[in-house]
Amino acid sequence: MGRIGDANQEALRRVFGADPVLIDVRPAGEVIAGLDEHVLLHAGPPIDWERMCGPLRGAVAGACVLEGWAPSLDEAGALAASGKIAFHPNHHFDAVGPMTGITSRSQPVMIVENRKFGNRSYCTLNEGLGKVMRFGGNDEEVIGRLRWLRDVLGPVVSGALRSCGGISLKGIIARGLSMGDEMHQRNVACSSLFLRELAPALARTESDSEKLASIIEFIGGNDQFFLNVGMAIGKAIMDPVRDIDGATIVTAMCRNGTDFGIRVSGTGDAWFTAPVEMPKGLYFPGYSEKDANPDMGDSTIIETMGLGGFAMAASPAVAGFVGAGSAMDALNFTRAMYEITVGENPEWTLPSLDFRGVPTGIDIRKVVETGIAPVINTGIAHREPGVGQVGAGVVHAPMACFEQALEAFAEKMGVA
Amino acid sequence: MGRIGDANQEALRRVFGADPVLIDVRPAGEVIAGLDEHVLLHAGPPIDWERMCGPLRGAVAGACVLEGWAPSLDEAGALAASGKIAFHPNHHFDAVGPMTGITSRSQPVMIVENRKFGNRSYCTLNEGLGKVMRFGGNDEEVIGRLRWLRDVLGPVVSGALRSCGGISLKGIIARGLSMGDEMHQRNVACSSLFLRELAPALARTESDSEKLASIIEFIGGNDQFFLNVGMAIGKAIMDPVRDIDGATIVTAMCRNGTDFGIRVSGTGDAWFTAPVEMPKGLYFPGYSEKDANPDMGDSTIIETMGLGGFAMAASPAVAGFVGAGSAMDALNFTRAMYEITVGENPEWTLPSLDFRGVPTGIDIRKVVETGIAPVINTGIAHREPGVGQVGAGVVHAPMACFEQALEAFAEKMGVA
Repeated sequence: MGRIGDANQEALRRVFGADPVLIDVRPAGEVIAGLDEHVLLHAGPPIDWERMCGPLRGAVAGACVLEGWAPSLDEAGALAASGKIAFHPNHHFDAVGPMTGITSRSQPVMIVENRKFGNRSYCTLNEGLGKVMRFGGNDEEVIGRLRWLRDVLGPVVSGALRSCGGISLKGIIARGLSMGDEMHQRNVACSSLFLRELAPALARTESDSEKLASIIEFIGGNDQFFLNVGMAIGKAIMDPVRDIDGATIVTAMCRNGTDFGIRVSGTGDAWFTAPVEMPKGLYFPGYSEKDANPDMGDSTIIETMGLGGFAMAASPAVAGFVGAGSAMDALNFTRAMYEITVGENPEWTLPSLDFRGVPTGIDIRKVVETGIAPVINTGIAHREPGVGQVGAGVVHAPMACFEQALEAFAEKMGVA
Repeated sequence: MGRIGDANQEALRRVFGADPVLIDVRPAGEVIAGLDEHVLLHAGPPIDWERMCGPLRGAVAGACVLEGWAPSLDEAGALAASGKIAFHPNHHFDAVGPMTGITSRSQPVMIVENRKFGNRSYCTLNEGLGKVMRFGGNDEEVIGRLRWLRDVLGPVVSGALRSCGGISLKGIIARGLSMGDEMHQRNVACSSLFLRELAPALARTESDSEKLASIIEFIGGNDQFFLNVGMAIGKAIMDPVRDIDGATIVTAMCRNGTDFGIRVSGTGDAWFTAPVEMPKGLYFPGYSEKDANPDMGDSTIIETMGLGGFAMAASPAVAGFVGAGSAMDALNFTRAMYEITVGENPEWTLPSLDFRGVPTGIDIRKVVETGIAPVINTGIAHREPGVGQVGAGVVHAPMACFEQALEAFAEKMGVA
């Protein structure tokens, strides 16, 4: 099938052969080399303070307070603007983060190991809905919850995961797809299945009944708890595909609230960026599109591995939540994604399409040829710092990223 | 709309207005008046030992050993055949039971209270899959598990339910329908959501970590745990409809493995029976239709309230499990049930049918007029005592039950 076809088949083999296992939760600074004092990781491609959007600035300020680098949000903002904080993409440190995606050294991160290839990925714990740091929230309530995750929940979940030998994740997603999850805007099934598997180990780890109950309640009370697990899965699965000579498969899509960036297997770690688009969606009561920040977060790693918007057929209920229309529309979003991908996942299947596998392996050639951009289910943050989530919707990856990537790929292949 | 129409609307109001809450787990003999020494309740309409099928006889023998009425299965069989055991339908004691449906005095039963009408219903705890008493299993392993449910799990779940004030159930079913459950042959979502809600209370109730973990593991390891909860919900919801003058709505469908019986609102507690049919389905490896017992169990209370086969559209995954065909076939099973029902549940909706409510209120007139019999998703038991489940499939309620009921109804209305 030619050099590109062979390279893409190798990419698919690595995606389908992956074996992601959640093995531990540790402080980020302990496991991510280089995540030192005054270093923050953020979602999306590289960006400096001057070009950061409101919610990202809000999360940066909150993280500076959480880490004890500034006594107040105002002073944190001044510190960040002074150039004394180093900003790097999560993706440069084997990590991913939802929305603002801030990862700082004391935050607990989940460690997902891809047992087939030995690589590891990291993602913070999901904070819940509403006013949370990933949507730019940064007040006492937000910081207090992050401290509780760091001091109480993180260490107990760590002990539970070590005691049970980790949690295998591929099967949870397979079941979740038959239970209405698409793993981006809907994770209620996977979150419930995950807790069901973790809870006995939690019971054996934590002997303080009230503390144990509060941890089970926190995880069980958050239908999106699994989102961050799913993102770490995506990073762990896609990283071994990151540098296959001749492959035209997208290995990462992410946004920092200002720029959308993609990486492609055959062009290694280069970023191809374009301005992010504004999601079309449904807003929570009291908010509208004029309050919304454009698209942000590393969570598009979910779509990169064939889920989220790509698996909308699994989830007619999410189609309503993101304002995407009827049950038939949900099927059609997925059907369109088969046009721009090179494979169908044999283990992650869609009951409503008679168990066809999710469309997997976005081919930049097909995107450019068909003019069909990858569809993304996303949360929507308020554009001011400190407010939080205001809605959810559907957005497309900017076509310009794929055009640039295809040009660079052609140049590298010597066919420009 | 005339007397029958008004009566049926009143029936629907009672069904939709119900508010089932799981309030406790108690030994059956403590809460079910008349469930004394040497009394056993069984699934389906009335039947005596001579006409009982193999798995029902097997479960009877097992229950006699469990209760200490006989030292061995052989002696238990002789005791049952001697006429010294009194057999009654669960339905005559506010109870329901899956498959063989044996309820004996020491077994823990869940208590569901319909807070709108004040009535209560009872159902045993689900034992898991495979060789279990509800499928006619009765060996040491089966009896041992029932003792553990009685002595360990039952009392802890009782304490947890009392401490948290009970678990409201209508919302769990609503969510389950958006997560691929139809609540008869597929309960993985509801079982997970139920455990998620119960687990914090379990943690606060049981301080022995290993015991707590084993209880969470048992519930979490059984995707059908919620089936028995759902059945108690069905009984609690349908009982207030049991005697509305002029109503043609079915209030119970059940089978004892020999006879299928229905009750109709306008004819009160009379049973209309006909021979049960053989399910068409898929068999576990090593088994075939020649091993199968005909249809059995009170679990058709699930279909009676509009779920199970009636809600197949929620569950393309179950269509495969019961051998009912493709995702489109699943939709069509549900569509057919709208032809024989008088309403659509406003709270229990089907995402794949753009949130149309489940077909509710089986009208015996429509069944007879259209010739469309209610469709039932069911488990299949081996026809010999002691073996257990051998498959799952789809079966229809016998048309003769509805014809008899319509004749009796007409006679009562004075239009025969």
